[in-house]
Amino acid sequence: MNGFACKSSTTVQADDFSLTGLHIPGNTRNAVGAAVTAVTVTQITGLNTLGISMGRIDFAPWGINPPHTHPRTSEILTVIDGSLEVGFITPDNRLISKTLQKGDVFVFPVGLVHYQRNIGNMNAVTISGLNSQNPGVITIGNAVFDSKPDISTDILAKAFQVNKNIVQQIKGKF
Amino acid sequence: MNGFACKSSTTVQADDFSLTGLHIPGNTRNAVGAAVTAVTVTQITGLNTLGISMGRIDFAPWGINPPHTHPRTSEILTVIDGSLEVGFITPDNRLISKTLQKGDVFVFPVGLVHYQRNIGNMNAVTISGLNSQNPGVITIGNAVFDSKPDISTDILAKAFQVNKNIVQQIKGKF
Amino acid sequence: MNGFACKSSTTVQADDFSLTGLHIPGNTRNAVGAAVTAVTVTQITGLNTLGISMGRIDFAPWGINPPHTHPRTSEILTVIDGSLEVGFITPDNRLISKTLQKGDVFVFPVGLVHYQRNIGNMNAVTISGLNSQNPGVITIGNAVFDSKPDISTDILAKAFQVNKNIVQQIKGKF
Amino acid sequence: MNGFACKSSTTVQADDFSLTGLHIPGNTRNAVGAAVTAVTVTQITGLNTLGISMGRIDFAPWGINPPHTHPRTSEILTVIDGSLEVGFITPDNRLISKTLQKGDVFVFPVGLVHYQRNIGNMNAVTISGLNSQNPGVITIGNAVFDSKPDISTDILAKAFQVNKNIVQQIKGKF
Amino acid sequence: MNGFACKSSTTVQADDFSLTGLHIPGNTRNAVGAAVTAVTVTQITGLNTLGISMGRIDFAPWGINPPHTHPRTSEILTVIDGSLEVGFITPDNRLISKTLQKGDVFVFPVGLVHYQRNIGNMNAVTISGLNSQNPGVITIGNAVFDSKPDISTDILAKAFQVNKNIVQQIKGKF
Amino acid sequence: MNGFACKSSTTVQADDFSLTGLHIPGNTRNAVGAAVTAVTVTQITGLNTLGISMGRIDFAPWGINPPHTHPRTSEILTVIDGSLEVGFITPDNRLISKTLQKGDVFVFPVGLVHYQRNIGNMNAVTISGLNSQNPGVITIGNAVFDSKPDISTDILAKAFQVNKNIVQQIKGKF
Repeated sequence: MNGFACKSSTTVQADDFSLTGLHIPGNTRNAVGAAVTAVTVTQITGLNTLGISMGRIDFAPWGINPPHTHPRTSEILTVIDGSLEVGFITPDNRLISKTLQKGDVFVFPVGLVHYQRNIGNMNAVTISGLNSQNPGVITIGNAVFDSKPDISTDILAKAFQVNKNIVQQIKGKF
Repeated sequence: MNGFACKSSTTVQADDFSLTGLHIPGNTRNAVGAAVTAVTVTQITGLNTLGISMGRIDFAPWGINPPHTHPRTSEILTVIDGSLEVGFITPDNRLISKTLQKGDVFVFPVGLVHYQRNIGNMNAVTISGLNSQNPGVITIGNAVFDSKPDISTDILAKAFQVNKNIVQQIKGKF
Repeated sequence: MNGFACKSSTTVQADDFSLTGLHIPGNTRNAVGAAVTAVTVTQITGLNTLGISMGRIDFAPWGINPPHTHPRTSEILTVIDGSLEVGFITPDNRLISKTLQKGDVFVFPVGLVHYQRNIGNMNAVTISGLNSQNPGVITIGNAVFDSKPDISTDILAKAFQVNKNIVQQIKGKF
Repeated sequence: MNGFACKSSTTVQADDFSLTGLHIPGNTRNAVGAAVTAVTVTQITGLNTLGISMGRIDFAPWGINPPHTHPRTSEILTVIDGSLEVGFITPDNRLISKTLQKGDVFVFPVGLVHYQRNIGNMNAVTISGLNSQNPGVITIGNAVFDSKPDISTDILAKAFQVNKNIVQQIKGKF
Repeated sequence: MNGFACKSSTTVQADDFSLTGLHIPGNTRNAVGAAVTAVTVTQITGLNTLGISMGRIDFAPWGINPPHTHPRTSEILTVIDGSLEVGFITPDNRLISKTLQKGDVFVFPVGLVHYQRNIGNMNAVTISGLNSQNPGVITIGNAVFDSKPDISTDILAKAFQVNKNIVQQIKGKF
Repeated sequence: MNGFACKSSTTVQADDFSLTGLHIPGNTRNAVGAAVTAVTVTQITGLNTLGISMGRIDFAPWGINPPHTHPRTSEILTVIDGSLEVGFITPDNRLISKTLQKGDVFVFPVGLVHYQRNIGNMNAVTISGLNSQNPGVITIGNAVFDSKPDISTDILAKAFQVNKNIVQQIKGKF
């Protein structure tokens, strides 16, 4: 695989290994006030088989990157600007969280639910490294309450131990 | 690792590779009406380095195994008794679901949110194979609404696009 | 690989991840009195890249699943019905064996020769999990005495330290 | 693993990565007329985590390296001296075999049953590369007919479709 | 490995997954005018088994990160400030290079020789993601001309096809 | 991958797993007095997915296999004829070297710079095993001083801490 991709090393060009524009802020005018800019094999074809990718996250003041998991990657993140609260939940339901300032680094182990939140009145920016060329992201709220078709209301009511009205109310918001 | 564990192959015993009792129904008298019995490296030490484990799930009538993910394993499940609705959510938020009868097999890809629900008035039972000796499980509801310490209410309110009262109501149920 | 298969997650259907009928007994009217029903990537295409599969084995009274190896998988097995003697041989030629009853679980490490035998007068049934989507099986007797073309009789005579008549007698039975 | 072993790179010595004497013929005065000299992590500690090892096989005239498998490695072999018949059996029981002369190279895929036989009146010698630091070897005859304790005679009689006398006769030879 | 590390998930703390200070410029007052700040398992113990790390590189005007390889990682890099020339050499000796501006991203495949050079009169800064928790770095000049003990001058003279005086001259500079 | 290649096991032939001629000395009449004969997936298609290959190196008297790395493989080498000095450089720039005689074995860990030199007046020959079907080789001198296009002279001057004349002199020799 990896090996024979390299046979075409006679034809690869620098553009197969690069892109521009990661310094441009993502558009955070959305419901959560945050925007992820992914740099994966979809954007850089030369990442194929290399098992690596990158991301930038922009946060409006108090914006959040809501609880999510990556099925195929761990993540290491550094704060370029601003202050963030970040956290992940261990398999025994402990929240490991920390307030980060510019220059701080934090690690999110593979497959665990995690989030980040801007805790300041300025924009915040992070850069992440990921160890998959196609890391995937499962945003918990969307996966659970906004799939197509949707998960039955009574399943969710039981899972979250609330009545069906509340589940339908949440579903309606997405 | 794998290699040198085998040096102690002079001392391993059959008990290091076995256990009894997987035919015994788990206790489903709980909030969700389901019980998972895991057979992992914690139960069978000989599974270490082998990258494999097994599980049994019991469902009371209409019981659910609520939405969850496994950070380190795919899962293949067969229905031993009863009828189940099962499903997983793809990274682009499509619900892939199916009604299963006795003898049906279903696959849940690694890291994706999935669930099972008994859709009958009898107990239901499944057996699963998993490709990790220590697969881990992240139950979404517990991870998000019942961690210690808990995730800030305003983060969850924003993530699920509901007001804080509802988040606190859900937190209170766990 | 794994990653890009998921791009087609917009077209996958539940049928790509399921099959029916694993509760149906295999036909054990054969020389060894056992039948393996495999659930691998050949039967469920969605198993591709997931590294997992499942199997059912039916045993007539005193039937055996004769000594075999899997080149690419470990195996974890539970007894659904009946009583079995199971065993594997370590690289230093120790037999690790055990009598299993309904609900017992046993593990066969990758690449080792192993077998199961029904030790009762009823049918027996097992379900196995395997950590390859295409585990492969090398049945020792068939590989050694029934290949096409066959291994030279004098090689086998020397390997098994018997005279050539016996080798030819065994070859003739397959 | 691999990584932190390298921290001790300040203390490793050349002797941790070498041995002498692979040019010395193994003693082939045994029942099969062949001798394997292994160079694995047991002999060279620096191989740990590197996933590689080497072997030399000596063959007396008409000696055989009897049918065996390696649970954790493929093998690539070159003939240094003499003429050999080599072969492996595919999972669909085809024998892939060839006569090799000095300088020929042959590959045995991971987990498949294979053998080599000197087909000349001179000694023969091979050098093999293997992609595990601890490849393991399962010699079929010994595993099946000479384990301790032994596999029940009636299991083997059924597996090889011969009467029990023959099985006991084979067992007695080992 | 990975699995059982997680058992101690009852004791891990946020500090096991974080550090501070990656915004602080490294000291580039050295012979090459560049400084690498590594964030690996040595700095963050929680990276163990996660297969990921990060780095920051500071460049004085016209400073270089001289030709080097990483034995265990690919690298994805983005320019935070300044302009860089970057390049790697393919196994067939093609130089794949590009001029990068702020916000550009470039990928260096595992094991290939690569370099970066500040091509401006201002400082330049990059952030890299790497897919090993302990990536290692082999700086070509130091490995070849400055090892302890040193590689024989006549080997290097032949390897670089220059006379021994030049080799000794280079050795003397390190 | 590996799995499905095996489906075509019904059509593979012995020639897909073998080649002839590795006993034939390579032509060492070149600038370094050494010749590598590779046996990789390019020569034997059946090596695909097996993660293994082999090589022979011939050395004229005092010939060298100049400093190089393999991006995807460790190497285990045995001396078939002659006397060699071999060495590799650790990530902390220690030279681990040894004089080898016929029958000696030496290991070069993945990704590290290494070399071999004939230290006798006779030809020398080695056989290597490698744990990749497509190991790749990066010869340091050629990668650094003879790429197309070439690395800027001033980068190399700074990297090797010599003046540009010397860099251009070295470039001119390749």
